[in-house]
This record gives sequence, C-alpha cells and structure tokens, in this order.
Amino acid sequence: MFFSFEGIDGSGKTTQLKQLTARLEETGLSVVATREPGGTRLAEAIRGLLLEKSDSVEARAELLLFGASRAQHVAQIIKPALKASQWVLSDRFADSSEAYQGALGLDREFIRAMNAFATGELQPKRTFFLDVAPEVGFERRRDGTEDRIEARGLEFLTSVRARYLEIARREPERVVVLDGAFPPDQLATMIWEDVEAFLVGG
Amino acid sequence: MFFSFEGIDGSGKTTQLKQLTARLEETGLSVVATREPGGTRLAEAIRGLLLEKSDSVEARAELLLFGASRAQHVAQIIKPALKASQWVLSDRFADSSEAYQGALGLDREFIRAMNAFATGELQPKRTFFLDVAPEVGFERRRDGTEDRIEARGLEFLTSVRARYLEIARREPERVVVLDGAFPPDQLATMIWEDVEAFLVGG
Repeated sequence: MFFSFEGIDGSGKTTQLKQLTARLEETGLSVVATREPGGTRLAEAIRGLLLEKSDSVEARAELLLFGASRAQHVAQIIKPALKASQWVLSDRFADSSEAYQGALGLDREFIRAMNAFATGELQPKRTFFLDVAPEVGFERRRDGTEDRIEARGLEFLTSVRARYLEIARREPERVVVLDGAFPPDQLATMIWEDVEAFLVGG
Repeated sequence: MFFSFEGIDGSGKTTQLKQLTARLEETGLSVVATREPGGTRLAEAIRGLLLEKSDSVEARAELLLFGASRAQHVAQIIKPALKASQWVLSDRFADSSEAYQGALGLDREFIRAMNAFATGELQPKRTFFLDVAPEVGFERRRDGTEDRIEARGLEFLTSVRARYLEIARREPERVVVLDGAFPPDQLATMIWEDVEAFLVGG
C-alpha cells in the first residue's frame, strides 16, 4: 500500500506522515517512511543540488532533476518495499512537480509525461493534501530557514496551492484534501479513519 | 552558429572539436567550446553523479539527469553565447541521449520529447558524427579508464552506434557522418570544408 503526503512547507504534512507511520507500526505493519527529493544516496545528492540557495538552477533543469530523483526513489525504495508487502508513506511525490514546477510556468503536459516516465506510472493509493493558506505555511516555519524553492514567496505558493487543488478536483478518488488549519491530532484521526478502510480491506 | 560533435568515446570527436575551434579562432571568430554533460557548475556536479562508477543509477534517472544537465547548459552557456554572436561547439548534445539511453531500451518518443523540452527545441546547425567501430573506440582509450556508461561494453556500444546512424538517416541535412578511421588531419579538412560554407554564407 502506497500513500503520499502533499502540501506546501509548513502545512503539517511531515507531522501527519510521522503520526500515521507510528499508528501503522502499532498495528504490526512494516512501514517505510520516505521523502522526495531524496530517499536514496543519488537522490539525496540531487536534493542538495536542488535546494542549495546559492546555486542558480534553470526551471527546466529543476523539473528534470526532480524527475531523476523520483525515478531513482521509485526503483530503489518504493517498488522494492511494495514488492516486499511493506507500506510506503512518501513525503511528497509526483504531484509536487505538477504543483511547484507547474507554478513556474513549465508545460503541464510535459510534467505529467515526465512523471509517468519516472514512476513507471506508479500512483499512490491515496494522497493526503494538507491545505493551508500560504501565509500560514510561512508563519509555521519557526526557525525562518527556507530552501531555494520555498523562498520564491507568497505569490508563487499561492499558485502552487491552486495547482494542488486542481489535481484534487481532477482525481477526487485519490487525493484527499484536508484543512491544515485543524489541530494536528484531529487531522491524524481523519487520516487514520481513511486509512483504516485499507487495513480492513486487506 | 552552433555545431555538435557526436560519437562513442575514443571516436576522435574531442580532437576534431579542438581542431575546429583553433581554425575558427584563427579566422578571428569568438568560439565557445563546451561539453555535455557539463559546462556549468550544476551540470558538472550532475556529470559527477552520472559518470561515477561506484554509484548505481537507474536508467530512467540517468536519462533525466542528462536532460537536466542539458537544460542548464543550453540556458546558461549555449543560448547566451549564440545571442552574443559567438560560435558554439559542443562535445555531445541531444543525440547522445537518443543513442545511449535509447540503447538502454528507454522509450524513444519520451527521449525526444525530453530533448525538445530541455533544449527549448534548439538544434545544432550541423552535427559531426565520428563513426568508428566500437572495438576501435575501446582500443583508442590508451589509459584504460572508462566511465560508468562506456563500461557497458561492446554490445551496448554497437547499439549506440546503430542509433547514431539512424539519427543520421532521419536528419541527413543536419548530421554529417564521418568515417573515424580516416587520419585526424584528413577528418579536420573534411569538417573545415563543410564549415567554411557557413563562414561564406555569413
């Protein structure tokens, strides 16, 4: 079973991923919690190239680097784990490229073709989108550190959010939109109620 | 004016690129000699990830990394140079992905779509393909060092060569096939005769 968590930085997605991991492990399941970009040695190296603030990365190169990281991540972490009947929870996945690099103005058809290529058409069973106002995301980052991509500012993040909501409208079966303004415990309960159905179902 | 040089390692393409650079500079032209993957700080970092023998890189990730390096290279080196009326000679370009990653069995339609995206549909005016038998390429590498990609062996390089010849058949106006078995000076003369036409033409 494969789930992804999406949202802008500060939306609480990482907290929810950790909570769900803990709950699933309590039931005795083997869970792989991973993240994008990253998760493998090569992908972590790519993450460094992507998020380093001092480097200038062209928008098209940025998209293709995320794709490369995703291809490596799927082939070396996600697919082997699924094959071994583990549950996989990923902090960001293909939707992030459509939302973030789409917000840079890159061709959406190509982004989707690249995602299909990089993932071998693998899709999460559920994607939990933690929806918060961009301003809230900013506020919640207590330490004030932001990477090269989040540093693009409010207008950019507003466009990112709009693209996430568009994906959710297009694929309502897969994408669960959660109001990130709710308290974390309440969100965890909502997510758990959704996930429990899969536990019962097999 | 933008030219690329293609061929397997050991085909003599780098030697020919250097000779043409020198000749063009003698006529007083400003020439940018560059290479793929590489040419920019980010692209050289990607080159390191790609060619390092000890790392395992998935085929799809490899293609997308070459694409990322190309996008950066085009945007930061090639297009600015062309805009400044410089001549650009690149050691490898988009055809390398079609030949090498195509030989890995990756979907050719996607490779071509990625190249079009990464380059913004920029094409070299001429591509000089130095055609040698894969065995010859191997022999010519005197120091015996080969990177992760060339280390794939003769059968792989035979498929790479076949793909190069296919591109040449598809785009005979752009791709000039040169028999790499000829002496370097003779090849340099053949290339120069072709390039001179562009000098006269403006």
